Amino acid sequence: MTQSTFAAARLIGLDWGSTGLRAFLIGAEGHLLDTRDAALGASVLQGAADYTRALQELAGDWMQAHPDLPNLPIIACGMVGSKHGWLEAPYAACPSGVTQLVQGLRSVPGTRVCIVPGLLYEPADAAPDVLRGEETQVVGALQTRPELAEKSCIVLPGTHSKWVDIQHGQVLGFATHMTGELFAVLRQHSVLGRLMADSSSEENLMTFLSGVDAVRKHGDLGLTHQLFAVRTLGLTERMPTSGLHDYLSGLLIGHELRSGMAWRRARGLGDAPLVLVGEPALCRRYAQALQRFGLPSAQALPNTAPAGLWQLALAAGLVTSSVIPSSSIATEPLQ
Amino acid sequence: MTQSTFAAARLIGLDWGSTGLRAFLIGAEGHLLDTRDAALGASVLQGAADYTRALQELAGDWMQAHPDLPNLPIIACGMVGSKHGWLEAPYAACPSGVTQLVQGLRSVPGTRVCIVPGLLYEPADAAPDVLRGEETQVVGALQTRPELAEKSCIVLPGTHSKWVDIQHGQVLGFATHMTGELFAVLRQHSVLGRLMADSSSEENLMTFLSGVDAVRKHGDLGLTHQLFAVRTLGLTERMPTSGLHDYLSGLLIGHELRSGMAWRRARGLGDAPLVLVGEPALCRRYAQALQRFGLPSAQALPNTAPAGLWQLALAAGLVTSSVIPSSSIATEPLQ
Repeated sequence: MTQSTFAAARLIGLDWGSTGLRAFLIGAEGHLLDTRDAALGASVLQGAADYTRALQELAGDWMQAHPDLPNLPIIACGMVGSKHGWLEAPYAACPSGVTQLVQGLRSVPGTRVCIVPGLLYEPADAAPDVLRGEETQVVGALQTRPELAEKSCIVLPGTHSKWVDIQHGQVLGFATHMTGELFAVLRQHSVLGRLMADSSSEENLMTFLSGVDAVRKHGDLGLTHQLFAVRTLGLTERMPTSGLHDYLSGLLIGHELRSGMAWRRARGLGDAPLVLVGEPALCRRYAQALQRFGLPSAQALPNTAPAGLWQLALAAGLVTSSVIPSSSIATEPLQ
Repeated sequence: MTQSTFAAARLIGLDWGSTGLRAFLIGAEGHLLDTRDAALGASVLQGAADYTRALQELAGDWMQAHPDLPNLPIIACGMVGSKHGWLEAPYAACPSGVTQLVQGLRSVPGTRVCIVPGLLYEPADAAPDVLRGEETQVVGALQTRPELAEKSCIVLPGTHSKWVDIQHGQVLGFATHMTGELFAVLRQHSVLGRLMADSSSEENLMTFLSGVDAVRKHGDLGLTHQLFAVRTLGLTERMPTSGLHDYLSGLLIGHELRSGMAWRRARGLGDAPLVLVGEPALCRRYAQALQRFGLPSAQALPNTAPAGLWQLALAAGLVTSSVIPSSSIATEPLQ
């Protein structure tokens, strides 16, 4: 870390999820100076001391006050703000935008850390839904691509995929799909994993798409039924065992898309742009699957969390657009 | 075991699944004389010696030739006939009835044991499906309720539920739903199990039905989405944690019924009787859920495996309807 990188730094941003902690050193105008990550997620930490130690371990040198420079403000999103995290930042209710998120920021006593709230969506007649961390990625996506703010559908694939309804710069609602977790759990713990080749992590696009197509053509047979084909196709040697995990992935993502596309239409977003946000390889898979559902050109944005963290810190006055923040703002973030 | 029970015995029937072995001592006309079971399923056995020992352990005294009586023939169904079972009895192809099943019987060399084949269903344009053990329960159900043979839908709830299309005394096709396994795997290994009260095995019918109703009303949101409500309803304290497993069960069974009922209509069975076969408490739950789907009076049959095993043994000539089988038939079952 050079003296000049330190001098340029304005903010430490943290994307602190269940399984991992990613830290971003952010410079003026949200420019990303450095990134680090570690398997120090909220699920392996307990109590303030654990969180302090984890942060020190990953970004201690960033946090060290440089003789000539003020301490950097720190802003964190994700499961760090859950009931069992470092400090609970209660969910902001939808519809919600930057203003509501900033109002919900919570500062951790005795630290320079501010935590972004998650979002709660309560549909009129269905079960509530929640997210934490993705609200910040959405803010970053709208910052990166302002034309999405008026009306768009942002899809964040992952362990728990989120389909987000954006209108007038606000999150009107969203729907979670447990696609990634279902894949992991079924592969590791169900009969479907038994025939899968152990070593195979090679990706087979055609097999993946044949799973997607099975859903497109026969999705009304239901996921609880179609999953069993992962076993029968292996058992009857219709599909090499090396492809079974791709087929499973295709079935699960296919069912997510089938429901998600119907949800999108039902919410009046059928003509609005659909943009994928997340890990590039996974977004590519989703884009390929979306083609099969008649959406030929879904664009993808890589990790927008740093942009979102910067944007929220800016709106909260933790940083300013072109001036080094005063230490009073940095150490006393808004309540 | 009295001398008279032995004297009345005609057949030993085995329902030998992945996790358990159930043995039935069957008398003239299929009358059930005794039942035993043990956790000696195919998944914990390897090789002929294991199977022989397990059978000896559970039913050794039944198998002992009584001085005055011939050795009893033995007929077995279930995973015992799979590729990794005692001896493979290759799947019979649908459409299939008693005749095809008897043609597919395999006798285990050096024993008096005959194994019933499973069924393979290959739809024209979808993935193949398989079952083992349920074919025998279906034969037993049609024996118990002959009016179902012409046209009916037999549903066998369980780890892997089976929906079976019966027409003209034959199995035309069927569909597996991994409902029970999904429930177990999600409860034990996913985030959905985390908030569930540990000790709760109490059943709450209303909560179960609210899960079923969520599918009935909003099933188009998709299972991958709706499952997440098990977490959010607990997290937001909208549902006591003691009810979450019932709600999960309602969602999964609800999605099975939603797809199963559509499948039934698509196969022209909309007006044919639907009968549940299996464990009474589980069948009761399915019947209650089916009511919500507009089917008020689904009847349930308890375990029909013994009746099916008797019927298949009879058709194979292993036993006769009113005469003690000759030892030559008993020791040399048809190939």
